[in-house]
Amino acid sequence: MNILDIIAKKRDKKELTKEEIEYFITNYTKGEISDYQAAALIMAIYINGMNEEETKNLTLAMAYSGKTLDLSDISETIIDKHSSGGIGDKVTLILMPLVASFGIPVAKMSGRGLGITGGTIDKLESIPGYRTDLSLDEFKKNIKEIGISLIGQTENLAPADKKIYALRDTISCTESIPLIASSIMSKKIAAGANKLVLEVTCGSGAFMKTKEEAEKLSKVMSKIGELAEIETVCVITNMEQPIGKNIGNALEVKEALEALNGKMEKDVEEIVLTLGAQIMKLAGISSDVNKNKEMILENLKNGKAYDKFIELVKKQYGDVEYLKHIENAKYIIPVKTSKGGYIEKLNAESIGRAALSLGARQNKKRR
Amino acid sequence: MNILDIIAKKRDKKELTKEEIEYFITNYTKGEISDYQAAALIMAIYINGMNEEETKNLTLAMAYSGKTLDLSDISETIIDKHSSGGIGDKVTLILMPLVASFGIPVAKMSGRGLGITGGTIDKLESIPGYRTDLSLDEFKKNIKEIGISLIGQTENLAPADKKIYALRDTISCTESIPLIASSIMSKKIAAGANKLVLEVTCGSGAFMKTKEEAEKLSKVMSKIGELAEIETVCVITNMEQPIGKNIGNALEVKEALEALNGKMEKDVEEIVLTLGAQIMKLAGISSDVNKNKEMILENLKNGKAYDKFIELVKKQYGDVEYLKHIENAKYIIPVKTSKGGYIEKLNAESIGRAALSLGARQNKKRR
Repeated sequence: MNILDIIAKKRDKKELTKEEIEYFITNYTKGEISDYQAAALIMAIYINGMNEEETKNLTLAMAYSGKTLDLSDISETIIDKHSSGGIGDKVTLILMPLVASFGIPVAKMSGRGLGITGGTIDKLESIPGYRTDLSLDEFKKNIKEIGISLIGQTENLAPADKKIYALRDTISCTESIPLIASSIMSKKIAAGANKLVLEVTCGSGAFMKTKEEAEKLSKVMSKIGELAEIETVCVITNMEQPIGKNIGNALEVKEALEALNGKMEKDVEEIVLTLGAQIMKLAGISSDVNKNKEMILENLKNGKAYDKFIELVKKQYGDVEYLKHIENAKYIIPVKTSKGGYIEKLNAESIGRAALSLGARQNKKRR
Repeated sequence: MNILDIIAKKRDKKELTKEEIEYFITNYTKGEISDYQAAALIMAIYINGMNEEETKNLTLAMAYSGKTLDLSDISETIIDKHSSGGIGDKVTLILMPLVASFGIPVAKMSGRGLGITGGTIDKLESIPGYRTDLSLDEFKKNIKEIGISLIGQTENLAPADKKIYALRDTISCTESIPLIASSIMSKKIAAGANKLVLEVTCGSGAFMKTKEEAEKLSKVMSKIGELAEIETVCVITNMEQPIGKNIGNALEVKEALEALNGKMEKDVEEIVLTLGAQIMKLAGISSDVNKNKEMILENLKNGKAYDKFIELVKKQYGDVEYLKHIENAKYIIPVKTSKGGYIEKLNAESIGRAALSLGARQNKKRR
């Protein structure tokens, strides 16, 4: 087997075998296949596509390209949640402590901001002292002790995905469904999940611009889940508008705290209820989604979700005093989106771009 | 302008502008665009193609990516000949001295073997002492003095082509008509030619396997020639069978010498007459192709073509005494091709592969 024949096959729109995909992933991870050969193959995959079987094989090869996390000593059921991201998306910050408040173990590795979309890790790091770089042992210890840990992705999980992800960004190959699906799913599988709730955002502020694309991506990921024996639920959410009312790392933590106290924007609430109810269903709390939603509202009211968040921050060395009086950012741009009826054309994408440029300036000042 | 947008355009099957193509070629040659970005773009060109205008712009950008040769002080008309190569193809060795014997200036830079096809430069170097690495000044001086010089391609001509050519080989992107056409034509334009005779070989022993592909390549190259104002004649020749009777560097020189003395295999003769008559027509000797063919046969009989070859070898420091008694190679495999009616399936490709493996062994012994 050699990489030239594999490239030529995909170039000619033929199906790659499991062995060929594994050969590519193994040798590219080891550095024995060059970046330019990988780039040629990835472009061929982008243009000529991959079927479900190929995408599953790519996903599994990437998932097992490095260390994998075994969380079976914590619980039989490890549920993970992924969102394809969006502007003002602070759902993870609210949803994960909420879920943990029901005794469902939360072992979550999150990413940083990508393009115009923010990242949970960046948001958590706006809390002074909060450490996102715990060792895997500490990560597992925390989950056992308080039922939740939220950290950044460690170096060793799915290294093939890291290389391919970085390469795709430099060769205009980001928006490809088999490549996006395998990237998301491989990381989750490597991180030890066996049940998944996937939120596919859709609209001007997301990577999937149309509902058709989002549905296609959902279908591919569900299929990979099925083939890889990972129970998977996909939820498509609207990303034409920013989510909630605040955009920016610290401001989103502030909004998340309010939400954990039961004061939530309608759009945020809808997402939290929908995803939360699905996670509870997967975890075996109840198969009645409406009942789950009621329980969620209860834990938001009685302070259990809020308390879990405070516990998490404390456990990861964050300054919980700070949370009581998060200052507003130095620069704040108030905007009314089309929901308010004022500015029709200021959509999620343009707000995201504005927030990014403003945020970048702030970060420079901080350093 | 940036490379990501250019890659994305071709990925989406859109036409690249002259400026975009020039941006890519200039910056890739300078090393400011990486090999993996070039690989992604080249794969997109391979799969999605290029129209005639794009191919012309690519050709000219590559032709002017480095030094170009100005031969206008030698003659107004600089004719070059190119063959896409084949097994046992010693036509250049016969044709070029023959053409020079009519006073047509021959300024020819040839290549080395590629894949299973042999290269003129390797063949000439089988003559002890023959130097293929003359300086450009010496190259021009020889053409002025004896009307012919035959050397290897120097480092500075069309450097973009060199980089792209090498890259294509490592990413399974060799057999692409716009890429082949631009590679051939850019080198010829950089080498100072303003009239071209192109031999497109076709069959199992050539890069173009079918007549349709060969015709398409001929059409594209003729069109580039027209758009770039280079008078171009394309001739398609059969490469199902090896050309002539000998394969191997020294053995082909031996066969070429016999041919220059008028003793030629029928297939070699047909190619020499066809290409020679076209070159003479382009050079303004006579527009009557049949008359040109008669003149060619005359110069093969009267020794003028042979003498010109000897003069060339002497001028480039080759041992002319050696030419009188070229030994047979140490290893010789006599085969009868289907022409002889013996071995139906031993086609040009398989003979080429056998010759390559044998030749490689001999080279190792020589070192």
